[in-house]
Amino acid sequence: MTPPPATGPAGLTPRGPHGPADLVVTGCTALTHDPHGEIVFVDDATIVVRDGLIASVTAVGARNATAAEHVTAPEHLPAAEHIDGRGTVALPGLVNCHTHTPMVALRGLAEDLPAHAWFNDWIWPVESNLTERVVGLGARLACAEMIRGGVTTFADHYFAMDAVAAATEESGLRALLGQTYFSSQGPEGRAASLDFALRLRGAADGRITTCLAPHAPYTVEGPDLAATAELAGEHGLLVHIHAAENREQTDNSLARHGRTPIEVLERAGLLDVDLLLAHATGLDTVRDLPVLRGAAERSGGRVAVASAPRGYLKFGWDTTPVRALCEAGIPVGLATDGAASNNTLDVWESMTLTALVQKYVERDPTWLTARQALDHATLQSARAVGLGDEIGSLAEGRRADLVLVDVTGPHTQPVHDLAATLVHSARSGDVRTTIVAGRVLMRDRELLTVDVSEVVGELGALLPGLVDRSHGKRIQEYEG
Amino acid sequence: MTPPPATGPAGLTPRGPHGPADLVVTGCTALTHDPHGEIVFVDDATIVVRDGLIASVTAVGARNATAAEHVTAPEHLPAAEHIDGRGTVALPGLVNCHTHTPMVALRGLAEDLPAHAWFNDWIWPVESNLTERVVGLGARLACAEMIRGGVTTFADHYFAMDAVAAATEESGLRALLGQTYFSSQGPEGRAASLDFALRLRGAADGRITTCLAPHAPYTVEGPDLAATAELAGEHGLLVHIHAAENREQTDNSLARHGRTPIEVLERAGLLDVDLLLAHATGLDTVRDLPVLRGAAERSGGRVAVASAPRGYLKFGWDTTPVRALCEAGIPVGLATDGAASNNTLDVWESMTLTALVQKYVERDPTWLTARQALDHATLQSARAVGLGDEIGSLAEGRRADLVLVDVTGPHTQPVHDLAATLVHSARSGDVRTTIVAGRVLMRDRELLTVDVSEVVGELGALLPGLVDRSHGKRIQEYEG
Repeated sequence: MTPPPATGPAGLTPRGPHGPADLVVTGCTALTHDPHGEIVFVDDATIVVRDGLIASVTAVGARNATAAEHVTAPEHLPAAEHIDGRGTVALPGLVNCHTHTPMVALRGLAEDLPAHAWFNDWIWPVESNLTERVVGLGARLACAEMIRGGVTTFADHYFAMDAVAAATEESGLRALLGQTYFSSQGPEGRAASLDFALRLRGAADGRITTCLAPHAPYTVEGPDLAATAELAGEHGLLVHIHAAENREQTDNSLARHGRTPIEVLERAGLLDVDLLLAHATGLDTVRDLPVLRGAAERSGGRVAVASAPRGYLKFGWDTTPVRALCEAGIPVGLATDGAASNNTLDVWESMTLTALVQKYVERDPTWLTARQALDHATLQSARAVGLGDEIGSLAEGRRADLVLVDVTGPHTQPVHDLAATLVHSARSGDVRTTIVAGRVLMRDRELLTVDVSEVVGELGALLPGLVDRSHGKRIQEYEG
Repeated sequence: MTPPPATGPAGLTPRGPHGPADLVVTGCTALTHDPHGEIVFVDDATIVVRDGLIASVTAVGARNATAAEHVTAPEHLPAAEHIDGRGTVALPGLVNCHTHTPMVALRGLAEDLPAHAWFNDWIWPVESNLTERVVGLGARLACAEMIRGGVTTFADHYFAMDAVAAATEESGLRALLGQTYFSSQGPEGRAASLDFALRLRGAADGRITTCLAPHAPYTVEGPDLAATAELAGEHGLLVHIHAAENREQTDNSLARHGRTPIEVLERAGLLDVDLLLAHATGLDTVRDLPVLRGAAERSGGRVAVASAPRGYLKFGWDTTPVRALCEAGIPVGLATDGAASNNTLDVWESMTLTALVQKYVERDPTWLTARQALDHATLQSARAVGLGDEIGSLAEGRRADLVLVDVTGPHTQPVHDLAATLVHSARSGDVRTTIVAGRVLMRDRELLTVDVSEVVGELGALLPGLVDRSHGKRIQEYEG
């Protein structure tokens, strides 16, 4: 081994404005994308990070071939921090495109129930007990779980979002945050959502982006939806909303309005702004797909869907029609929904389940290949949360949000097809290291920004008050 | 804390013939069963193991109440080995009721394919390259994976089973082993299967039990099946066979024989012996269920089904009709099938997927509760592999096969419902310690009986020869 030079030869110093890199990962296999967006695995790759951005991803052989006279082992590149990535795959950090992080406090509280009982008898009564303190502790616990599971960005849709923003800032994660509102709150709900979005936009050194977060077409009325679309256009904000969560909601919408939930959103003008639709398992493919395809083709807006397949299985619902949405040009990002329905915030499992469930419902084992699943997990998820140019790919100039996944375990060996290894054999627990904006948030499974036992202890003391349903109140009534 | 006594007071020395216990686990929550088979979680439990058996499972409070004058902290009970189980749940080791362990060598080799292409173009050509050395290395790797995933017993159905038996012995696992045969091998195939079953029965200090392993009704002809039933009755052997793997096989069987695969087995007399049916996703519920119910009600035999739900999703097949089988009194054990189709041997995932998929296919979120899933994972799986009185429950006199599962991680906190935490939030990677017959095979995630890097290295060198399909041969032709 060559000893490290005091300063690297000019040709091998990582390109950047000044001095050494902030972080160098060596010896990993890097999941990259070619110019057409196809996944290319680069073996024995060196990833150089500077100023929170990816400065370069290069194969050792390729670099040496172009600068054969300046052979410096990549582990000796000058950098503030080195990570030995041997035995791991580096991939863009996962994106949780739709969740309610504080609901981890309710994980496992209301099980084996249909949606009506789940909402009306459990979740909505309990949510009337929410305090900002519970929200903040839940969000911190959720951030810990997501960092451990390789999630680097999450899209949250909940109440008391200032507490979620504080947890985001503290944890080091990236997030798209929106404050939920119902028409039952009056115009104050929408105003508070806008206020939050404008105040927090760009917070946490730019890691926080914001959106407007009307709850759903069945809880937010037409005029409110139209006002939301106007505000979104005026302020350049994305809108994140539950829509067509199941077929029953679509049937009820048709009965009430003569329109599907998607048609209700279209009429409100929401398909002409950046729009993130959660779930969409109840799409009427005959009526809704042409509407969504039209929105995708128009230049004005960008519509995407977040799919959280675990909860649909658990409620016995149809799943998101991923194939039809792909054919319509609509990105489908991966999500977990809240842990009260999904039990975890494990986006890796969402990726695996998306592959499995799509094969099953389409009755086509050749559909939704492992590489397609990785495309949903990377580029499509990045687009869904409005960060299509910033994250989702390990490429020069993108945010340095990446995870290192150990593939040396007996359950991932041997490797005949690395895409299949990642999607079908690896698990979220194989993520060893999580990095956001170049900062290491977990190293070798050790969390560096959240103290889980402290959070669990504080949250535990508040649980009896949280789950008390003796007051008989609900924040809403679910009719679907 | 009281210092440990040189010898414990007589009333608190773990009951057993002589001297101290072999192993004591303290401070865990133990998953036990009441006399009706219902799951009861015992908090702050002490599990005492002697001579490979569970000597007792007691709650600290309960023991102290009956012997208040002899208060000895359970961590001070005399024993050769102590394990601090705080923060973990002790449950009966998982059972993989149907697998082909050596196929881990083909993990990820043939992906995103329909069953015909998977068998005929990939698996059966590659299996013609199998050597005993590959089988042995694959089995060792599989044992490592299963120990890491909390599996303590597996039912294997493959070729060159002496090599699998050697891996079982070395790894410390418990197994039900059967040597596969086809009618195309002539009577020698069946004779070799019987020879293996009689030679290896009771090997590895009794950890190995054996069975006859005809491949399937579509590859083993009626007279061979009838001869198998006779041998099983004569020698008191269980029969493990693939049956009605998918609906197409049932349709083809009806076209060829005028009988479903289950009716073919009945006619051969196989429903009157101990029988383990793999998959059964293609059951004709109108014709087959009464036949199976009749077999369950007769005293002569015991019929069970092994379900590996992941592969059914991946191939786009129906799943095992668990509800109908339960109503017919047929135990359904959990399985993974081989890693060539299932990608892992993760029985924990099979448990989770069984809960999720059953809710979905029955369109009933109240069906297959977390506790039912745990029942399939414990008592029903033990019965399926013919060890219903030996394993599957943490009870005095049963084999000391148990795992300790860490529930302190952020993805498993807080705990509102421990059954839901185990089935829907915990993962196989949360298993910290795996114990078979009182011997610790993994401690704090460290494998003690298999050297994974050595096995992976040796297997890797053999893979090019294994996956070579240029010879154009197949061990069988799949028509379904």
